[in-house]
Amino acid sequence: MSPREVAVEPDIDLAQGMFDALRANTSAGRGITRATYGAGENFAHDLARKTAAGLGLEIATDAALNLYMTLPGRRRELPRLMTGSHMDSVPQGGNYDGAAGVVAGLAALAGLCRQGVLPERDITVMAIRAEEAAWFNSNYIGSHAAFGRLDPGALDVRRADTGRPLSEHIAEAGGDVAALRRGQAHLDPQGVAAFLEVHIEQGPVLESAGLPVGLVTGIRGCLRHADAKCHGAYAHSGAAPREIRRDAVAATVALIHGLTQHWNEVERAGGDLVFTVGQFNTDAAVAAPSKVAGETRFVLDFRGLEEKIMRQASAEAERLATEIAGRHRVSFDLGEGAYSYPAILDAELRRRLGDLAGHLALPVMALASGAGHDSAVFTEFGVPSAMIFIRNAHGSHNPDEAMEMEDFAAATRLLASFLAEGASR
Amino acid sequence: MSPREVAVEPDIDLAQGMFDALRANTSAGRGITRATYGAGENFAHDLARKTAAGLGLEIATDAALNLYMTLPGRRRELPRLMTGSHMDSVPQGGNYDGAAGVVAGLAALAGLCRQGVLPERDITVMAIRAEEAAWFNSNYIGSHAAFGRLDPGALDVRRADTGRPLSEHIAEAGGDVAALRRGQAHLDPQGVAAFLEVHIEQGPVLESAGLPVGLVTGIRGCLRHADAKCHGAYAHSGAAPREIRRDAVAATVALIHGLTQHWNEVERAGGDLVFTVGQFNTDAAVAAPSKVAGETRFVLDFRGLEEKIMRQASAEAERLATEIAGRHRVSFDLGEGAYSYPAILDAELRRRLGDLAGHLALPVMALASGAGHDSAVFTEFGVPSAMIFIRNAHGSHNPDEAMEMEDFAAATRLLASFLAEGASR
Repeated sequence: MSPREVAVEPDIDLAQGMFDALRANTSAGRGITRATYGAGENFAHDLARKTAAGLGLEIATDAALNLYMTLPGRRRELPRLMTGSHMDSVPQGGNYDGAAGVVAGLAALAGLCRQGVLPERDITVMAIRAEEAAWFNSNYIGSHAAFGRLDPGALDVRRADTGRPLSEHIAEAGGDVAALRRGQAHLDPQGVAAFLEVHIEQGPVLESAGLPVGLVTGIRGCLRHADAKCHGAYAHSGAAPREIRRDAVAATVALIHGLTQHWNEVERAGGDLVFTVGQFNTDAAVAAPSKVAGETRFVLDFRGLEEKIMRQASAEAERLATEIAGRHRVSFDLGEGAYSYPAILDAELRRRLGDLAGHLALPVMALASGAGHDSAVFTEFGVPSAMIFIRNAHGSHNPDEAMEMEDFAAATRLLASFLAEGASR
Repeated sequence: MSPREVAVEPDIDLAQGMFDALRANTSAGRGITRATYGAGENFAHDLARKTAAGLGLEIATDAALNLYMTLPGRRRELPRLMTGSHMDSVPQGGNYDGAAGVVAGLAALAGLCRQGVLPERDITVMAIRAEEAAWFNSNYIGSHAAFGRLDPGALDVRRADTGRPLSEHIAEAGGDVAALRRGQAHLDPQGVAAFLEVHIEQGPVLESAGLPVGLVTGIRGCLRHADAKCHGAYAHSGAAPREIRRDAVAATVALIHGLTQHWNEVERAGGDLVFTVGQFNTDAAVAAPSKVAGETRFVLDFRGLEEKIMRQASAEAERLATEIAGRHRVSFDLGEGAYSYPAILDAELRRRLGDLAGHLALPVMALASGAGHDSAVFTEFGVPSAMIFIRNAHGSHNPDEAMEMEDFAAATRLLASFLAEGASR
């Protein structure tokens, strides 16, 4: 195949118009705020709906107000191809995290329509609700609801800013809370051939590699000891000799040092592991410059694509804690590690995307996603899923996201070409 | 000399009565509170004055209301022997920190009087004011004032609980603020042959060694980087790969680990060094379990008997910080280290006390003091000084100080015998 044979040009003007409208209408100070089931998210969904209507797509919503915008295929009984992402943002986030995936889907379908592609099977762009955990303290509310698998308890969780429960916010936006409580599904995994999500990368891997687009191997799971503690004893820092100290900071530093060495070993053996201590604190009310610290609290966060490697790291933490506790006369309480499973994305879809990128003369690399995405939910329910990452200079969840439209266009060209090819199989 | 020849028996009943009166009249909840220039300290000084009057001692005060209780010698022109300590306490402290040294002095003089010892030179018990930094944020207010060396700026510092300045509190208790501002001295270092301070140990060294009494080699100085910082960059903990992270916790842990190794080397070489990180914090407003930490704040506290060793440790901290900053792509700002000099106590006095303890069949050990004491001020102004530590199970500055009267009696017997011998030289 030559590039000409496979390339479908997306409608980048349409995409630029949507991004501009989103920025103009959901800015709040320096950043972008599209609260889950709030004014910003509602605006984004209305914009997607109007854009889809302008393209002549079929439009549907489900009980949670996820929006489905479909280019009908010739054989509507076939499992459909889906693409999309979420449209909410964290407070003071950026314009592209989430929204870029919906805009890419619509720009791709606009390109297909423009080139007169009539697909064999339906292609649906899904604008997903409520992906960001910042508002209701749980991820994936929208995508779980789409499969009829939203935990009813989530409906009672109050939004961080308003203090009002999710159920009220959904009802206010026009959703069907009773149907959500019943577990009414809109999507049947058997009816979805594949889900493709375009998303800005939230880390700097593509930026470092100098590549515009990445193909995601999987979404790292996490094993987190979020409230680990070390108990020692406060003592006068000048008067308490080393051999009888019960120094919680010294012991915790020894633990972190040991786990860093474990991380080195796992990496040398080629394993996928990320170890982070994002919080480390002595007690502000008791600790003092002139005291040996009697207590620390800290987080041990292990991430990876394989449960086994995360479990081994957690076990190593427990083993080291026991050894160091004896040596430093302290006790550790690491707590139960909270586990979220990794999502392994579909290797065959990734291979096909890679081949297609080659035909499009688009250089790509494979990389793991550290952050969670709705694709994990599609994977969880058995839908083969793939993700295309777009290079982004300054991380996400902040106003400084820096996606270039050229990179967006490259990713969307890959998506459009894949949809055109995939929908004709 | 046999024990009989040198031993002077202190009046332990008198001491017990003073401790009981202090406890009964300065308790506040579980602990003891004798605020600097407050009701508790005033009560303690009144009690000492009345006790001294009962023993027929000469009584004087200075502008800061330090109390001098003197057994006159035959040759009053000779430099006098002094003993004593402070009588204030931290809030919710114990009954013995400070007060034990004044009580020991009076019990010793009572013993000398009872045995009819008529010393060659004057022996003065000094009840010192305002040693605890908890109230006016500086140590040694009373002893500096006694030498006419109180920084006038200290008079404007407000007491932590009342919010009123030191000058008001001193005037209210009957002191002479104008004389303090003038730098009027009560003590001339040339007029003091030696200063001996009895104090409970504030660390657990004697308790661990199973010895009732210790002879202090010196008071450790301190070189403290009280507001050290590491600046990195916040990033998503799952998505930011190791090789481009700017992890402030990882870098700070590496620094502390390296300084612990330096401490090991200094100890192996026989140097006196204590290294403590009493506070270590990520930023509560920004740090999160799922973020690489972009900032830490911590304290590096080096203590020792030799300035050179503390300076070397601080230099090692700077050297390591530079090296680690490069490796971890962070920057450290350790700040200027605040230095308080060590006080080397008088070796000849300590030798004489050690010999005397041998004659009294009292097992003693030499140890360094980690905490500061008024003896440091006497040393600063050129008065040969010594300290006798009394075993104490649970540290100081808390209600659980656990001095045994038997240990107090042993220390006071050593003091009384030394005063009797020293005053006859």
